[in-house]
Amino acid sequence: MPPIGRRPGSADTRAILLDTARKLFADNGYDRTSVRDIATAAGVDPALIRHYFGNKDGLFRATMGWPFDPAELAARIVDGDLEGIGERLARVFLALWDQPESRGRLEAILRGAATHEESATLARQFIQDQLYQLVAAALPGPDPELRIDLAMAQLLGIAYLRYILRVEPIASESIDNLATRVAPTITSHLIG
Amino acid sequence: MPPIGRRPGSADTRAILLDTARKLFADNGYDRTSVRDIATAAGVDPALIRHYFGNKDGLFRATMGWPFDPAELAARIVDGDLEGIGERLARVFLALWDQPESRGRLEAILRGAATHEESATLARQFIQDQLYQLVAAALPGPDPELRIDLAMAQLLGIAYLRYILRVEPIASESIDNLATRVAPTITSHLIG
Repeated sequence: MPPIGRRPGSADTRAILLDTARKLFADNGYDRTSVRDIATAAGVDPALIRHYFGNKDGLFRATMGWPFDPAELAARIVDGDLEGIGERLARVFLALWDQPESRGRLEAILRGAATHEESATLARQFIQDQLYQLVAAALPGPDPELRIDLAMAQLLGIAYLRYILRVEPIASESIDNLATRVAPTITSHLIG
Repeated sequence: MPPIGRRPGSADTRAILLDTARKLFADNGYDRTSVRDIATAAGVDPALIRHYFGNKDGLFRATMGWPFDPAELAARIVDGDLEGIGERLARVFLALWDQPESRGRLEAILRGAATHEESATLARQFIQDQLYQLVAAALPGPDPELRIDLAMAQLLGIAYLRYILRVEPIASESIDNLATRVAPTITSHLIG
């Protein structure tokens, strides 16, 4: 029989790193928290964080259960003609919500942020510091962040009514129809 | 000393009626639940429900903590020229969220529906069976319910980002500015 107890580098260590990082990111913010701070607080070598999560970004996304690379998503939304940006954002967003694997993660984030202050803080930092910066640079005109807020509000509200409340008829509408319907609104918020 | 115990018509009775009603409405739906069913299940006289809640509508709104008369709200949104409907809906909605008393109730409904299936069911029935019917009749064109869904999604998303996540800059924007900004979107969803 192997000895019972915590093995270094085990699933336990990963969970401890996530708990520690979640707390430090929420308390001090993403910018003011280093990989070294988290390693020190968790009592492990910083190399272990790189081993599990690649870098600070990867660790941050893991703390909130975010299953995508935001830079890759942003590139899919920004690449192409500006008039098509609303349709691309709507389709990328709704496709993520329509796949059962990613829907589960997104639902957990949306529900968690609605009820736990720490989860809301992490989601807020993620949206403001990562997603917005990647998309805002591509937008012309004044106050790009408020424009993204209004566009994101439209899409988040659709996700809330469709997947959380399951209100009809929006819950049964096809993704294709919804994306077509809402694309002009999103484009108008972003570049109108 | 008065005797200790439950007095008929006390706060206890009101709480028991709310619990019973919440369960029956969620299980059987608003239409298939009568005041008599609820009185029977709670073991009280139906007159007591009228005493506390006025009627079935009032009882239903109390089960979900809804602090407004939906018919009165709908009248404020629908009355006036059709082109102004988006601005009126946005201002009524945002004003309710901006008053601390009603904001607390609305936050509780939004958070509760995100995490409790019974609360989500009640909110869904309320939106579909009461709010939508009051507004849909005033809208021209096809699929008025989907139009209301898209308009409500825009406003709910703003409430979620502003009051639950407190994402900037939308959290600090003035209500007046937000309503002006979002009114054309709402009007376009509702009558566009």
